[in-house]
Amino acid sequence: MSGNERPTGQQQTSTAAAESAFLKACRGEPVPHTPVWFMRQAGRSLPEYLKVREGIPMLESCMRPELVTEITLQPVRRHKVDAAIYFSDIVVPLKAIGLDLDIKPGVGPVVAEPIRTRADLQRLRALEPDDVAYVTEAIGMLTGELGSTPLIGFAGAPFTLASYLVEGGPSRNHEHTKAMMYGDPELWADLLDRLADITSAFLTVQIEAGASAVQLFDSWVGALAPAEYRRSVMPASSKVFDAVAGYGVPRIHFGVGTGELLGLMGEAGADVVGVDWRVPLDEAARRVGAGRTLQGNLDPAVLFAPRSAVESAAREVLASARDLPGHIFNLGHGVLPATDPDALTRLVDFVHSQTQA
Amino acid sequence: MSGNERPTGQQQTSTAAAESAFLKACRGEPVPHTPVWFMRQAGRSLPEYLKVREGIPMLESCMRPELVTEITLQPVRRHKVDAAIYFSDIVVPLKAIGLDLDIKPGVGPVVAEPIRTRADLQRLRALEPDDVAYVTEAIGMLTGELGSTPLIGFAGAPFTLASYLVEGGPSRNHEHTKAMMYGDPELWADLLDRLADITSAFLTVQIEAGASAVQLFDSWVGALAPAEYRRSVMPASSKVFDAVAGYGVPRIHFGVGTGELLGLMGEAGADVVGVDWRVPLDEAARRVGAGRTLQGNLDPAVLFAPRSAVESAAREVLASARDLPGHIFNLGHGVLPATDPDALTRLVDFVHSQTQA
Repeated sequence: MSGNERPTGQQQTSTAAAESAFLKACRGEPVPHTPVWFMRQAGRSLPEYLKVREGIPMLESCMRPELVTEITLQPVRRHKVDAAIYFSDIVVPLKAIGLDLDIKPGVGPVVAEPIRTRADLQRLRALEPDDVAYVTEAIGMLTGELGSTPLIGFAGAPFTLASYLVEGGPSRNHEHTKAMMYGDPELWADLLDRLADITSAFLTVQIEAGASAVQLFDSWVGALAPAEYRRSVMPASSKVFDAVAGYGVPRIHFGVGTGELLGLMGEAGADVVGVDWRVPLDEAARRVGAGRTLQGNLDPAVLFAPRSAVESAAREVLASARDLPGHIFNLGHGVLPATDPDALTRLVDFVHSQTQA
Repeated sequence: MSGNERPTGQQQTSTAAAESAFLKACRGEPVPHTPVWFMRQAGRSLPEYLKVREGIPMLESCMRPELVTEITLQPVRRHKVDAAIYFSDIVVPLKAIGLDLDIKPGVGPVVAEPIRTRADLQRLRALEPDDVAYVTEAIGMLTGELGSTPLIGFAGAPFTLASYLVEGGPSRNHEHTKAMMYGDPELWADLLDRLADITSAFLTVQIEAGASAVQLFDSWVGALAPAEYRRSVMPASSKVFDAVAGYGVPRIHFGVGTGELLGLMGEAGADVVGVDWRVPLDEAARRVGAGRTLQGNLDPAVLFAPRSAVESAAREVLASARDLPGHIFNLGHGVLPATDPDALTRLVDFVHSQTQA
């Protein structure tokens, strides 16, 4: 963590949360045990989640403060993870500014009219706090309930948002996105810049409401080579990190298949860099450089193997993290839907027991 | 290329083909120009392919020697690429030994009864040359037609084949595959060993019929961390490369998202290592080490951008390959279906013109 952070807004991390293992690890301070949380810990793998979501479309569930609060708390209650992550979806801020999009079960976000021309940019207006009043309300409830457990704010990064908007939905190859990026760099830069502003505003709302950290998800950015990332993506991601730097909350950055990008993703302004399971943490540390905490990186598919195999794989992760200044244990990607929740609970317990100071 | 290769079989590479830019580059010798070919050059992007395939299911088309010959030749005629690749599908040898599987349009290979237990292994009998007589016949025709253009033999690698067999079809997360790999390493090793033998036999048939090189496609292996690759996959891939080493034909190895595995994939026994677009070739060379040619690595999505952007990206690839002992220009993954064939033809011409000695 750099020393030049000046809280400029109302940031409400409680003293108890500030002393949590999770936030200590983010800051690279000694911890009582290695903190653990899981990407997608709130969601599809939990029966209590499936129950409260019954009959409620995904986007609607993200706009109901009581429901968001309940879903965000569920994995904290069940698994005793060291941090909660705000339950949302990366397209929520885009929906909030009035874009016609929906999340189709089994497909993902689908955008009615893709963004492909300069004229289309007009549809990306600025996000105002009032557009997401339910976020402020939900986080207000959450921080009351969470006590000393820190809450991580959540947002999708400009590249990944752009891919959904330009393709019109999930894409394996990102053809249209890359055609714009390579073929019309100015339009591309303007698109990402607008998305950076929207994302910054969305994270700011969450921090001002009480989030103690933020994670910027660039799920698809592993589709790019380093030179292209530096040229076409990093300026926008940096803009987001800079916009929230003044609050002094740790900024986590994560993507999948980003082995070649880890150094640049840290440079973009992250205090914590998430690593998928493809790069051992000691090698990731060499790429990210000193002064940043790493988060990861158990293969989520390992949880389908017997307990002894899970523990042996978790031990390998912990061993590769031994010399890091800060480590947050997580999976290398989100919890897979068919994962046994008990395997997750056991894993939290195992990591805690292995690392108790 | 090592000097200890002793042709033991009937290997029919013509003198003209042996002197081709492609085979010279495989051997790390000086070339008249950088050779170019494209993964999936024969197939979905070509109107003449769609025409000859009309009404013929994929697997059937792989078993008709005249059709295979025509499809394999089409991109050579149209694009003037420096090598042909034998038209097939990675599940062809599995179909040939009697497994109940099919290739569903828009889905991929689907296996009626997945392989999940030791008893299931019995279904993986050895492949005999007579099981794939159409391959021998097609290659006989092809080498006559191709003249000095070398033919690359084609096979899927044990891990990728295993993933289809264990999952029962394409999979994003390979849960069942990894559950077996982590949970029952002995069963896993035996499965991969059988697949290595089948693959070796399939490649041997192609080499004896006249293929001048072979490429082993491990499309999904980028889903593994290096330690897991070394432990659970490398022995089987090495077995395949060893089995064909005596023929002295260059052995190419390719996967996607394999930045962390490049060194090990070379070590497994490849003479040429394929690199996707995520790792710059100069960095890939550091990971692969001396004595091996690299193949790649233009992002296939770049071909959706205007010509000037394609040329600028191709120039970057050539620049990053400048100091390599051997370079074969290719895309970093297969040609995408919607690619304009003319863009491919222009790209071949561009690479040739930029690199003419």
